[in-house]
Amino acid sequence: MTTGTPAPDPQARADGEPSRIPVGVLGARGRMGTEVVKAVNAAEDLELVAMVDEGDWLFNVADAGAQVVVDFTRPDVVMDNIRFCVDHDIHCVVGTTGFDEQRLATVAEWLEPKPSVGVVIAPNFGIGAILLMRFAQEAARFFPSTEIVELHHPNKVDAPSGTAARTARLVAAARRDAGLPPPPDATTDALPGARGADVDGIAVHAVRLTGLVAHQEVLMGAAGETLTLRHDSYDRASFMPGVLLAVREVGRRPGLTVGLESFLGL
Amino acid sequence: MTTGTPAPDPQARADGEPSRIPVGVLGARGRMGTEVVKAVNAAEDLELVAMVDEGDWLFNVADAGAQVVVDFTRPDVVMDNIRFCVDHDIHCVVGTTGFDEQRLATVAEWLEPKPSVGVVIAPNFGIGAILLMRFAQEAARFFPSTEIVELHHPNKVDAPSGTAARTARLVAAARRDAGLPPPPDATTDALPGARGADVDGIAVHAVRLTGLVAHQEVLMGAAGETLTLRHDSYDRASFMPGVLLAVREVGRRPGLTVGLESFLGL
Amino acid sequence: MTTGTPAPDPQARADGEPSRIPVGVLGARGRMGTEVVKAVNAAEDLELVAMVDEGDWLFNVADAGAQVVVDFTRPDVVMDNIRFCVDHDIHCVVGTTGFDEQRLATVAEWLEPKPSVGVVIAPNFGIGAILLMRFAQEAARFFPSTEIVELHHPNKVDAPSGTAARTARLVAAARRDAGLPPPPDATTDALPGARGADVDGIAVHAVRLTGLVAHQEVLMGAAGETLTLRHDSYDRASFMPGVLLAVREVGRRPGLTVGLESFLGL
Amino acid sequence: MTTGTPAPDPQARADGEPSRIPVGVLGARGRMGTEVVKAVNAAEDLELVAMVDEGDWLFNVADAGAQVVVDFTRPDVVMDNIRFCVDHDIHCVVGTTGFDEQRLATVAEWLEPKPSVGVVIAPNFGIGAILLMRFAQEAARFFPSTEIVELHHPNKVDAPSGTAARTARLVAAARRDAGLPPPPDATTDALPGARGADVDGIAVHAVRLTGLVAHQEVLMGAAGETLTLRHDSYDRASFMPGVLLAVREVGRRPGLTVGLESFLGL
Repeated sequence: MTTGTPAPDPQARADGEPSRIPVGVLGARGRMGTEVVKAVNAAEDLELVAMVDEGDWLFNVADAGAQVVVDFTRPDVVMDNIRFCVDHDIHCVVGTTGFDEQRLATVAEWLEPKPSVGVVIAPNFGIGAILLMRFAQEAARFFPSTEIVELHHPNKVDAPSGTAARTARLVAAARRDAGLPPPPDATTDALPGARGADVDGIAVHAVRLTGLVAHQEVLMGAAGETLTLRHDSYDRASFMPGVLLAVREVGRRPGLTVGLESFLGL
Repeated sequence: MTTGTPAPDPQARADGEPSRIPVGVLGARGRMGTEVVKAVNAAEDLELVAMVDEGDWLFNVADAGAQVVVDFTRPDVVMDNIRFCVDHDIHCVVGTTGFDEQRLATVAEWLEPKPSVGVVIAPNFGIGAILLMRFAQEAARFFPSTEIVELHHPNKVDAPSGTAARTARLVAAARRDAGLPPPPDATTDALPGARGADVDGIAVHAVRLTGLVAHQEVLMGAAGETLTLRHDSYDRASFMPGVLLAVREVGRRPGLTVGLESFLGL
Repeated sequence: MTTGTPAPDPQARADGEPSRIPVGVLGARGRMGTEVVKAVNAAEDLELVAMVDEGDWLFNVADAGAQVVVDFTRPDVVMDNIRFCVDHDIHCVVGTTGFDEQRLATVAEWLEPKPSVGVVIAPNFGIGAILLMRFAQEAARFFPSTEIVELHHPNKVDAPSGTAARTARLVAAARRDAGLPPPPDATTDALPGARGADVDGIAVHAVRLTGLVAHQEVLMGAAGETLTLRHDSYDRASFMPGVLLAVREVGRRPGLTVGLESFLGL
Repeated sequence: MTTGTPAPDPQARADGEPSRIPVGVLGARGRMGTEVVKAVNAAEDLELVAMVDEGDWLFNVADAGAQVVVDFTRPDVVMDNIRFCVDHDIHCVVGTTGFDEQRLATVAEWLEPKPSVGVVIAPNFGIGAILLMRFAQEAARFFPSTEIVELHHPNKVDAPSGTAARTARLVAAARRDAGLPPPPDATTDALPGARGADVDGIAVHAVRLTGLVAHQEVLMGAAGETLTLRHDSYDRASFMPGVLLAVREVGRRPGLTVGLESFLGL
């Protein structure tokens, strides 16, 4: 089997046994890449056929017959990687950061002449975090108040976290769509910073604490009740179910997909 | 205005000012009824035209021109109330408990010859609780483990709460649909009761504590992460937004609606 | 019985039945005073003998034979009230705010010639809140990191709450006594306010949310573990056990006591 | 330096530089022992002089000049280890389980002729867990209701956890001492297990969830308020500060000490 002539259904073989999807990992020695390698090896329906990192030849993944490539590399090399894969009819699951509108448009362009190739670019493969964002977005219009508290280990350099800021913007947009006024707040006498950062009108508070890993709480309140959505991430392992889901699905989703949400059926 | 000749659009009047929906409350002196009376009085687009409780004439609500009736009475009188309202072309919002399949079928029959009348029967008007159940149901298939902890004041006689049991059954159904095996549990050495009640395969724990009101937590776990959905209800006031939403919408939803979910656009 | 000749043991009567402590309430029609009146009436060992508010004569409490007075009035009248009680040998339980070092010194002076009279002035009668502060103080030295999140209804005008600020200062002092360095924090890229208010080196975050009442969380972290202390106050009723405890104890604690801590045996 | 003639102050040397305490680790290749080895190596004031595990000679620790031995071995060998250390004037920090009253009495007997040797035997070196138990015990008498929820990974075989059961017993004893009646509970209609396990009159609930590590919550309630104490343990590293504290202090605490509490100044 070569990537140039992909089997029509990668799950079926002539002998009746399910075939395994051949997977290549780019950035295989990085922190996330290492986890991906472990997860692919542990999955019965996947086969690790190539591990590539700095200093390795990219065409190894093509030669090895990878049908899907997982890329956790760096913003400065990821575009080359995607271009190579698309050219070689290899589906891509991309967790590398640094994509703006322009980069996404470029990838979409590359995919135009390749109607069977799929690329999914996701800022977050944590299914729990994605669900939390989705639920916050759905619930926002029913609650006059929403605030976000994110809690991380003290080595984190940015505050608030990217996920918290993104959640705040999604909530703010849902509130605008529903015509909600700003959350009520009678504060007139505050110490600087007490009421958190203002992200698109939503207060976001960042706690930094030795012993914590990565946690986020969305608090929503209406008269007489509150709804709290909390996600606790203890381990990079938590991203792997999302990565594996994308690996299994990307071949059925030609074109560019941004975010894992649609793969989750949300 | 009489209920026999409802205005084509209850929101508009000839003088350009929005008309108010005339509302009657059955069980007006009960704990929930009292809250409904307050909430209707406080709503600018609603007008309280009749309050009925034991010993009062039911036809008062018709004579007073109620277009919508809210019923928080008792299982032994609610069917008569609904029948009366349907016969008089009055929409019904029913929070009284005790509806089984047979009662629902009877109400649906009554509605057949009345294509413009709407009846909504909801076991729970708390929007937060409804959202929590919905989100738990949606998230269930992504997590190997789900357990529920509900926490209430110590005067509650049933354990677990009806809402917790219902949430457990919804989660269990979603897990079955997704083909999930039972949640992992290596417990071999347990005190009786330590692992909670088994509701359709889901462990449910009931905490009773002075000072608490009504709280529910759904805990979902996957490798390296947990998602927690928590609802805190401090006050019966929290049911009123759901009741008012139903009052405003029921006229646009002819026939029988069970549960508030569809009114919430969920 | 007159307050000038107090019974040696207010709990004992000649007939063998326990006597009840006669209590007067100042500010009896205020929000806290109303609760105190209810609580004293409900306590079998206390007897409400006088209720005084603006426009009433203060000497009513003396004439009525009050042995203990509870004062929830205003900063501009509380000193006169205390002076009157001390002069009439009536013990005082004071929840009114606005006491600084000078006022406390003045009260202590008044008490010098009255060795049997007790006055307790407490900024907080909530036993849960007092315990939380105490535990935070005791635990602080074992954890490199401490932050505080307080959560209140959106009508609150100050942020952070007085209790949270006080807790932060107590924690900061305990950390200094133990020689701890500042909590680790690698943040270099923060939105203004994201990291909360700085109270004596401790980050304090204030959440304002419809539906909430008054809540406080102290989060402490060390390598691989966190300890969280949380207090939820749903109702002014929560202050009454502390007030009643003070009423029962103040007669056995001559002189000036600041804070309820010592009455709690902490 | 030999262990038979310990320096009067192990922290001081003739040249003015602080000396390091020589430490031996028994069970050095076990899960806890491995962590202890790492922690001792990382501590500037301690020196790892011997690592002993099955198959190694115990007298290595004496020959190497260990002043303190840390024992995380097994119930069937720990008594021999302690006897050896006491005989050789080596202080012991013991985390091995399986001590009953008889074993403790035996150790105390061995220590009688050795007035300068200290042995501390602790079921738990997690400072957070110890603080939680202590605070629960102190607060118990102020709250009519206390319940415990412990949450662990699903591979745990016992339910509830030993720490939760111990906390329940401590709370129950504190309640008895204060003359509190049983917690109020109107439950009459319960599914089996819903109200948790009964440990000495305290309800204890055990949650098992993929993704969790080891967590415990003590919930205490009074009218209008609740106090929640929560400990989250993410990593065995969390036990090391307690172990190192014991190593540093045991030389100053001759005789047998059970539990780390007194070392914490609690």
